[in-house]
Amino acid sequence: MNQHGVGIVHTQYFTSNEPLRLSSGDILPEVTLAYETYGTLNDARDNAILLLHALSGDAHAAGYHSVHDRKPGWWDTMVGPGRAFDTDKYFVICSNVLGGCKGSSGPLTLNPLTGRRYAADFPVVTIRDMVMAQVRLIDMLGIAELHAVAGGSMGGFQAIEWMAQHPSRLNRAILLATSASHQAQAVAWNVIGRQAIMRDPKWCNGYYDVADPPCDGLAVARMIGHITYLSDASLQHRSGQRYGTTTQPAYSLAPEFEIDAYLAHQAHRFNERFDANSYLYITKAMDYWDITQGFPSVQAALSRWHKPTCILSFDSDWLYPTSESLKIADAVRANGGNVEIAELHSTAGHDAFLLEYLAQTPIIQRFLHAEVIAKSAALRV
Amino acid sequence: MNQHGVGIVHTQYFTSNEPLRLSSGDILPEVTLAYETYGTLNDARDNAILLLHALSGDAHAAGYHSVHDRKPGWWDTMVGPGRAFDTDKYFVICSNVLGGCKGSSGPLTLNPLTGRRYAADFPVVTIRDMVMAQVRLIDMLGIAELHAVAGGSMGGFQAIEWMAQHPSRLNRAILLATSASHQAQAVAWNVIGRQAIMRDPKWCNGYYDVADPPCDGLAVARMIGHITYLSDASLQHRSGQRYGTTTQPAYSLAPEFEIDAYLAHQAHRFNERFDANSYLYITKAMDYWDITQGFPSVQAALSRWHKPTCILSFDSDWLYPTSESLKIADAVRANGGNVEIAELHSTAGHDAFLLEYLAQTPIIQRFLHAEVIAKSAALRV
Repeated sequence: MNQHGVGIVHTQYFTSNEPLRLSSGDILPEVTLAYETYGTLNDARDNAILLLHALSGDAHAAGYHSVHDRKPGWWDTMVGPGRAFDTDKYFVICSNVLGGCKGSSGPLTLNPLTGRRYAADFPVVTIRDMVMAQVRLIDMLGIAELHAVAGGSMGGFQAIEWMAQHPSRLNRAILLATSASHQAQAVAWNVIGRQAIMRDPKWCNGYYDVADPPCDGLAVARMIGHITYLSDASLQHRSGQRYGTTTQPAYSLAPEFEIDAYLAHQAHRFNERFDANSYLYITKAMDYWDITQGFPSVQAALSRWHKPTCILSFDSDWLYPTSESLKIADAVRANGGNVEIAELHSTAGHDAFLLEYLAQTPIIQRFLHAEVIAKSAALRV
Repeated sequence: MNQHGVGIVHTQYFTSNEPLRLSSGDILPEVTLAYETYGTLNDARDNAILLLHALSGDAHAAGYHSVHDRKPGWWDTMVGPGRAFDTDKYFVICSNVLGGCKGSSGPLTLNPLTGRRYAADFPVVTIRDMVMAQVRLIDMLGIAELHAVAGGSMGGFQAIEWMAQHPSRLNRAILLATSASHQAQAVAWNVIGRQAIMRDPKWCNGYYDVADPPCDGLAVARMIGHITYLSDASLQHRSGQRYGTTTQPAYSLAPEFEIDAYLAHQAHRFNERFDANSYLYITKAMDYWDITQGFPSVQAALSRWHKPTCILSFDSDWLYPTSESLKIADAVRANGGNVEIAELHSTAGHDAFLLEYLAQTPIIQRFLHAEVIAKSAALRV
């Protein structure tokens, strides 16, 4: 797939020096977003698609940073020439979220007031704040209207926020494996993950040495998250046999199951690439997520959105089940928007939106393309 | 319900001085089980029912230890005069499991060889070992055949082990919300719970000061377990509003959700009553649980069991779903045993077997009583 993908790409950085007033009322003196782009912005500047990432994602959605990279970006199967987000047609943008640890403003950023990292002094941000920062990036790129926004999981939260707060800035939305508000059980898993981090003595109230971070707490948090992203079937498939190299119990307290090794590996890899404070900030933003905050209903919160909306869910996703997608679809339809909704079969659980590119691609291509035709037809009249 | 229950009861202790050879090959020089009994053993000594408890249970199934107790035993709604396990008819026994921390031999026990607590030197035990210790208790009580064994969750594992290994010692079995082998996702939650405890610096490889135990690790382990015992609906009901005392976010990293307070309370209470090492030993026994270990199938493992079996599951239990009950029912039926199986409706999740006494009581009473009639009829012939 490498030779047909977007090839070598580089992360770019956008800094807005205008202070950003956050949902909390706090002011961020300046905002930096790391972002990548794939494909070419056309002269009409109307072929841009903004991709929105999930909890542990980053700006690197597709391609390779160097020829030595073993793995491409997180959605490489979906972004490239001829792929779901076709870079022969579209200018695809992906930015790391505010509060992240992959080049955007977040707890690892130097606080201009102190010259030290913000750490736990970074203000708490919301999905709305993440989207406000993205609007500035789109402004800087000279894009008045996005062809589409698309996101799965927390990326879907951001897409819904774009629909609700900036409906004139995008022409359609693609929501994958997501929800209009974070439900009790999903909040609970994040609550426990944060407890694991904040009870790790190395967390030091957030002011830890970045060379000696609370790895054990973040490991446990990631293990919990990881299980919620899988179905029982996909976990069984990935963890293989109950015992690692033997078929007999070791009769020891020590880890010995294939699942022990699998989760330890996942946690170790996550510690190498993610910051524990960022995990706290981003999960808190997710747990605040409720599009109906201040509104009587999802329909009322989305009252300004009347454009085409594609909503996909997966039958083995128990973290953001299809029932959540239906609530969004009902609200958009009640407001007069055109909704294409499908529940796709997958054994991959919540992770399906990252993995099931073969099933997603024709639906997304048709959804993105159909609109182009309708628009062209309208222009010809 | 108090005045109609079993009233004030006292925990008793049984010690067998005969060394117990465990599944691991290790030898326990002596075995103590804490147990309680309710009702009266009849002259024929054939009206005894053994109750088997779950992960965090103990010998105190019913009644009160003193008039000052705020809460009765863990299955008080099910045990007493006229209740599911009717103490006017039956002699009901409940023992704390081997490896536990409620009076039975376990990591808190003094090692006779050293005079110090076993801690992590306690040998790893299995469900089979727990049942072998129970057999000694039943022997000591002079009971050749139990009228029934009954257990939910891990208690069901023990009941299945009784069916497989000691079929001549019981006349029927009641299995609630349980499984014939621990499935991948259930194992994974325990794996993460053990990681939380063993990564807590206060665990000290198991040799912690019991006055300063790894409370943070055990808290996180309990929080994870707790969510798996509830359905999304029951969690939503218990955790009430998203924000505790207000309707607005606090925009802080600190705990603020109703679920934060709920889980912190559950974890705190659990730390007051449970030992972290016992949590490791008991969850390890659960994760080893697989009745097919050494057999080609559940049917083969249960080949010696041909007696009446009552199997109940709950439609909102996603930890031990009905599909697991069906595997047991199919095996018992294939071996010629009579099976009564039902999936009961409940929003309580896995905890339903502890809570839904109204639905369980008539089924269990009929199942226990029908057999008495059949036996009497046979005797009269």
